[in-house]
Amino acid sequence: LSKNFNIDHKRKERTGFQEIVFGASKYVEQISAIINDFKENNHHVLITKIQNKKAKKLQQEFPESFYDEISQIYMAGKFPSNPVNGEVAILTAGTSDQYLVNEVYYTLLFFGREAKRFQDIGVAGVHRLLEKVDEIKSYKVIIVIAGFEGALPTVVGGLFPQPIIAVPASVGYGVSKGGKAALNSMLSSCANGITVVNIDNGYGAAMAAIRIINNKH
Amino acid sequence: LSKNFNIDHKRKERTGFQEIVFGASKYVEQISAIINDFKENNHHVLITKIQNKKAKKLQQEFPESFYDEISQIYMAGKFPSNPVNGEVAILTAGTSDQYLVNEVYYTLLFFGREAKRFQDIGVAGVHRLLEKVDEIKSYKVIIVIAGFEGALPTVVGGLFPQPIIAVPASVGYGVSKGGKAALNSMLSSCANGITVVNIDNGYGAAMAAIRIINNKH
Amino acid sequence: LSKNFNIDHKRKERTGFQEIVFGASKYVEQISAIINDFKENNHHVLITKIQNKKAKKLQQEFPESFYDEISQIYMAGKFPSNPVNGEVAILTAGTSDQYLVNEVYYTLLFFGREAKRFQDIGVAGVHRLLEKVDEIKSYKVIIVIAGFEGALPTVVGGLFPQPIIAVPASVGYGVSKGGKAALNSMLSSCANGITVVNIDNGYGAAMAAIRIINNKH
Amino acid sequence: LSKNFNIDHKRKERTGFQEIVFGASKYVEQISAIINDFKENNHHVLITKIQNKKAKKLQQEFPESFYDEISQIYMAGKFPSNPVNGEVAILTAGTSDQYLVNEVYYTLLFFGREAKRFQDIGVAGVHRLLEKVDEIKSYKVIIVIAGFEGALPTVVGGLFPQPIIAVPASVGYGVSKGGKAALNSMLSSCANGITVVNIDNGYGAAMAAIRIINNKH
Amino acid sequence: LSKNFNIDHKRKERTGFQEIVFGASKYVEQISAIINDFKENNHHVLITKIQNKKAKKLQQEFPESFYDEISQIYMAGKFPSNPVNGEVAILTAGTSDQYLVNEVYYTLLFFGREAKRFQDIGVAGVHRLLEKVDEIKSYKVIIVIAGFEGALPTVVGGLFPQPIIAVPASVGYGVSKGGKAALNSMLSSCANGITVVNIDNGYGAAMAAIRIINNKH
Amino acid sequence: LSKNFNIDHKRKERTGFQEIVFGASKYVEQISAIINDFKENNHHVLITKIQNKKAKKLQQEFPESFYDEISQIYMAGKFPSNPVNGEVAILTAGTSDQYLVNEVYYTLLFFGREAKRFQDIGVAGVHRLLEKVDEIKSYKVIIVIAGFEGALPTVVGGLFPQPIIAVPASVGYGVSKGGKAALNSMLSSCANGITVVNIDNGYGAAMAAIRIINNKH
Amino acid sequence: LSKNFNIDHKRKERTGFQEIVFGASKYVEQISAIINDFKENNHHVLITKIQNKKAKKLQQEFPESFYDEISQIYMAGKFPSNPVNGEVAILTAGTSDQYLVNEVYYTLLFFGREAKRFQDIGVAGVHRLLEKVDEIKSYKVIIVIAGFEGALPTVVGGLFPQPIIAVPASVGYGVSKGGKAALNSMLSSCANGITVVNIDNGYGAAMAAIRIINNKH
Amino acid sequence: LSKNFNIDHKRKERTGFQEIVFGASKYVEQISAIINDFKENNHHVLITKIQNKKAKKLQQEFPESFYDEISQIYMAGKFPSNPVNGEVAILTAGTSDQYLVNEVYYTLLFFGREAKRFQDIGVAGVHRLLEKVDEIKSYKVIIVIAGFEGALPTVVGGLFPQPIIAVPASVGYGVSKGGKAALNSMLSSCANGITVVNIDNGYGAAMAAIRIINNKH
Repeated sequence: LSKNFNIDHKRKERTGFQEIVFGASKYVEQISAIINDFKENNHHVLITKIQNKKAKKLQQEFPESFYDEISQIYMAGKFPSNPVNGEVAILTAGTSDQYLVNEVYYTLLFFGREAKRFQDIGVAGVHRLLEKVDEIKSYKVIIVIAGFEGALPTVVGGLFPQPIIAVPASVGYGVSKGGKAALNSMLSSCANGITVVNIDNGYGAAMAAIRIINNKH
Repeated sequence: LSKNFNIDHKRKERTGFQEIVFGASKYVEQISAIINDFKENNHHVLITKIQNKKAKKLQQEFPESFYDEISQIYMAGKFPSNPVNGEVAILTAGTSDQYLVNEVYYTLLFFGREAKRFQDIGVAGVHRLLEKVDEIKSYKVIIVIAGFEGALPTVVGGLFPQPIIAVPASVGYGVSKGGKAALNSMLSSCANGITVVNIDNGYGAAMAAIRIINNKH
Repeated sequence: LSKNFNIDHKRKERTGFQEIVFGASKYVEQISAIINDFKENNHHVLITKIQNKKAKKLQQEFPESFYDEISQIYMAGKFPSNPVNGEVAILTAGTSDQYLVNEVYYTLLFFGREAKRFQDIGVAGVHRLLEKVDEIKSYKVIIVIAGFEGALPTVVGGLFPQPIIAVPASVGYGVSKGGKAALNSMLSSCANGITVVNIDNGYGAAMAAIRIINNKH
Repeated sequence: LSKNFNIDHKRKERTGFQEIVFGASKYVEQISAIINDFKENNHHVLITKIQNKKAKKLQQEFPESFYDEISQIYMAGKFPSNPVNGEVAILTAGTSDQYLVNEVYYTLLFFGREAKRFQDIGVAGVHRLLEKVDEIKSYKVIIVIAGFEGALPTVVGGLFPQPIIAVPASVGYGVSKGGKAALNSMLSSCANGITVVNIDNGYGAAMAAIRIINNKH
Repeated sequence: LSKNFNIDHKRKERTGFQEIVFGASKYVEQISAIINDFKENNHHVLITKIQNKKAKKLQQEFPESFYDEISQIYMAGKFPSNPVNGEVAILTAGTSDQYLVNEVYYTLLFFGREAKRFQDIGVAGVHRLLEKVDEIKSYKVIIVIAGFEGALPTVVGGLFPQPIIAVPASVGYGVSKGGKAALNSMLSSCANGITVVNIDNGYGAAMAAIRIINNKH
Repeated sequence: LSKNFNIDHKRKERTGFQEIVFGASKYVEQISAIINDFKENNHHVLITKIQNKKAKKLQQEFPESFYDEISQIYMAGKFPSNPVNGEVAILTAGTSDQYLVNEVYYTLLFFGREAKRFQDIGVAGVHRLLEKVDEIKSYKVIIVIAGFEGALPTVVGGLFPQPIIAVPASVGYGVSKGGKAALNSMLSSCANGITVVNIDNGYGAAMAAIRIINNKH
Repeated sequence: LSKNFNIDHKRKERTGFQEIVFGASKYVEQISAIINDFKENNHHVLITKIQNKKAKKLQQEFPESFYDEISQIYMAGKFPSNPVNGEVAILTAGTSDQYLVNEVYYTLLFFGREAKRFQDIGVAGVHRLLEKVDEIKSYKVIIVIAGFEGALPTVVGGLFPQPIIAVPASVGYGVSKGGKAALNSMLSSCANGITVVNIDNGYGAAMAAIRIINNKH
Repeated sequence: LSKNFNIDHKRKERTGFQEIVFGASKYVEQISAIINDFKENNHHVLITKIQNKKAKKLQQEFPESFYDEISQIYMAGKFPSNPVNGEVAILTAGTSDQYLVNEVYYTLLFFGREAKRFQDIGVAGVHRLLEKVDEIKSYKVIIVIAGFEGALPTVVGGLFPQPIIAVPASVGYGVSKGGKAALNSMLSSCANGITVVNIDNGYGAAMAAIRIINNKH
């Protein structure tokens, strides 16, 4: 089979950030060829949701690379050396959301930002969030991650003035299995101006934050 | 057509409360005959979700009766004269839930309880709830009503020790139209021991409260 | 019945913008009381998705008010006199989305921003969008509205660096009736960093834009 | 990675019972750290829905612990030595629901209650239930578990005056696969005042029973 | 427009019963032409689910005809004069199902059978059904109609040896609105050998009974 | 409000046919302006799914126009005078599908083709179809319309070699209400090479036929 | 743990056939105890949908038993020695439905009937069915099995006078994955008097046939 | 067990192409017998979606055969030696769709056509498609494959006059998991005359193309 991909190398020129690769449904040979294509264009490349086995094979082929098993995110190349702090706060309802925290965190790191994590502050114990209000207020963008009933963004939305990006997690069972209950909860939030990304789309939330931060206007 | 109903008059003996009638899909002649059957057995009768037109006709036939247009609840007979106070607290997220507040309130009143209403204390402004914590703590049972994302029960569940019955309201639009988002949110709550009734089932929540209050054990 | 609402007047202090009122499921007497409560606190008030009949009654009670029949948005008071231009671009796929354009437009106007509208540039005729690229690039935030298959945000996302807020419209029939096809399409977009609000939630998109614009960091 | 959890140790003070841990989506290192955190606060800890492999590892680390393979519930510490009898009756429709019986049973045991089990009394053979009516009447709370069509709670609701908590089981296939048919059946019950928890949420039903039993009012 | 229908007049020869006409989505002129076509072939004709307005017009055109407003069933011609008794029992859970009782009843009558009705014997008051067991046992076929949670067929299925046809009714609200909860409940029944027809398909249940009764083998 | 549409007048150049207008969610003033815009470009214009009231107003403004109440299709201008015959066969399962037959028929007529209609040949009486096999074989394209279970395309697909476009109709009730059962049935057909359009999208099926007929290759 | 089952041994007395056991969600020890309980009551026992591993263990414990891997049906004991022929015809659309053919076949055999199988006569090649019409007409009951679009029962329903029980198979992919497309298709059939059982419920269809055949009236 | 299949060997005579076999739910012995039956009728045979293990066994039995692991398509026999070029263009949005590209490609090859592939030209980088417009215009039929939001067919539909067959891919996660978002997007396309096949039905799209190409009229 001949080359079956077609990297959009001009995306950075148009949007300020390059194309990112979805790894889950590609086979190793495809991804390997894609990485080499990026390399020839002098780009690092970030690959999301890539299974352990496939990542291990790529790490053998590309020794200078990084893989996080929890979020299944892979990076061929090096992270920027002095990431900017203090721009993005990541809030999570529980500890089961760690895989999304990491996907957001490493995507932001890939683009030179180091996020601050405020984890396990779900609103079934709302005082945990209220104690952090002043600290969280200092960030430019808030990313809120929650599974199950996804109630955290509503309380956050009523407390903070910043842009808020909600990420539903596919954590739960019964009616919340797969993340749709959290997604619908976030989309229906009574708090004003919450925006939402797809279930488990930590990478998308990070990119939305980058769009806001990059805003030169 | 001959008589097509069969009231379960022994339910009170078995369960401590009598049968209640669902009005929405019955025609006036049916309901009228049912009321007369209850009367012959010396019972008042409560009819839920009955449309305005039908209720007006019944009020003409049964002058001693009560109808609330907001909740579409109808009662043939008289409410108990000295209802008990201080047992049930009704909490609502917004003011669009008024129809359910009333359905819960009048069902409880039919069984001799006067509930206390704490309305419009949704968690997008969580301080409104926190200010009421001490007062709410004094009730035996908490009924929580919410539409849209249905986040209120989770915060309530983390603050109070009492039995909590959550009622999803069919208030919302887009993904929360019809109340499924609120229902799923409540069923998935991270707070411990929240129980849930059907969307818009204010009457059912009241009955569940009665079961708890009647508990003689 | 006693007062059944509880306006969160401190929301502006916390978030920079005041509470907005959802009008569809409230009855006129409730809304009237709410408007008076805002007035006593010296605030104008914006009410979304309020039916024509109810709005007409309110306009009689509050002569200094505005109602747009297409979007069913109502404002008691006056719009700010010199709104800021050049911050928000509203893009729509078709002309059936006018009701959402107006909801976004008047919400922004309520907060002192006048948006620019680029309408009927759906990607079945992609050249209509490509011709506007340079002009659209000058805005701080892009709001994209689409019904049916909701494809416009994906093409927009690949062309522009700004924050993009996608609004699914409940315009369509068959599998796109109610807007879920457009919603799911937008949430699944292959373009990086698109955020989404609920179906028909033009007001929410405007608020998200305000959060971004207000960003002082 | 630094500590990523934040136990709500004051929940017991507020609600009368401590936080319980959802095990299915946490990795062993997280759970182990959480258990140690509880230990440092002199608490036992109950972990629900934790996979066999992970539980085995924890049992090696914490020798004084209990694991039930059928319900996948794990307890680090000791159950109370003299649990109270006669308060909670667990009714099940079939024998496939054993995993939920055990989750309810051990959660109650963790809080010092020993429940009585009435199993395999589904209403396709309704006489099995009718024979037990007098015995079941003596309990304070009834928990009813059923998969497939979830019909048992309706018959139970018409026979007993107590609070009834229905638990839909994800047992079935075709349209009842995953438990939604049973859930919807329970939510729609014609019997008065049935409350419902999420599919497979045996632990939640137990907590709801605890809320009722703890009721001091 | 030319003739746009094509009656399958040989169906009776093949199956033992003639074609029945679905009225809801046809316009009066179509139905009128269809009736005349049947007449030319010396057949009466049964039309189901035809709206009041349309039926009134047809009754003017065809004076010898019958219309039942409750079930919206229409018959052009005369019912057979000496219908057979004792073959079909119609059981219903509540009184809201009357429209389906009538659709079943008149369809059977059209084919020369007079069914016996046992109404409002839902299992929230299971003794009402148990009292009728001996009487019901004498019929050849049992048709069971229920809305809401649709639990009645399961209890019936465990009590009787006859063929049982369950008809879900679109009676209910919240999760049982539209009848899917009842349908899924009936399809998942733990009782052996229950068969099911579409929601509100009383006519289909009657035809299935006819197939069983006609069985000459 | 200023002009809010943007007709893609170059579509004909690119695709061989012009833009068609969806009427259901546009208001009369919008449609009127759109018609005038087409007129200025010397085009007739076809508007689908436009409600009676709105069409009547347009007919007053544009006397030379056509409206079919059954399909709610409107055409400003004149149909081509000598349409081509013998290219498209429209097959329907029942007579309730007339509204779609007409939408297909008039769309084709707008583009200069007169289709042949074979109606009410559903497979519950399969001989009605088998009798027409030879006649149907002579057409270039077959469009098959069906509601309820949508079984007709499968039998058609096994009998004919031509391109087959299946149109699910929103005719039915219970599980087939809204047309999803027919849609899914058509998409899952065991017959080879059936293609499908959206529910009630008769116009889309006609356009797909035009694409095939126009094929110059 | 003590005995957790409660066989309804009087079901045969009431209904004419004994209880059948659902094997998929029970563990081996439960099933083994259930078989022994049946044995003590001198009954054979049929267990449906039991996984290979579990069945192998049971066959070691109960040497006189039968297991069919394709349908995963297990029988402890012996099939009746002279089953009755000529009563039930099993029709299937394709060869992928074999697992259901076998479940129906062996359930009928357990009750002393040997069914005749007509396989792979789906209506994409409708002549295969038409050739068998006369032969099929001689059976008392027709069971029709189909996956994908489930069109076969509609054609069968128009050709035969007998009782017809349709079984949707979970065979298919995309929109027909899991069998809901076939189920909804069968429930919506335009053919008169088709009844339906749950997806993959071959055993239920066999029991429904037994109810019809046993009919003594 | 006796022979349980019934190949429709006359389909080619009726439709111009032979029956194709769905491999996923058949066991090896069935498929092997089917291949032999085709051989005896001097036909090659194409089997879709057959798992690796089963294909390996068949390749041992039938050495002259072809298997593609990516698409899981299997062919017993030889592909035609001089396939026709220049008739079908396959367009894909990304590289994750390779399995469908191959299913389409090899099905067309089986029928003597060699398709041209234009891969990874999704509209998040719309210039990649625009660059290919002239080349793509030369093909008779366009097949468009896309997962996630499925936006590509809309842009394609607005650019080209040919018949367009859209294939939704089950590539994605969250709301696009399983391919329904892409399917609904394609069915709702604002571009005129797009037709759609089932999710992952690459083979069906190829067959629809064959129907168009074979068109002799």
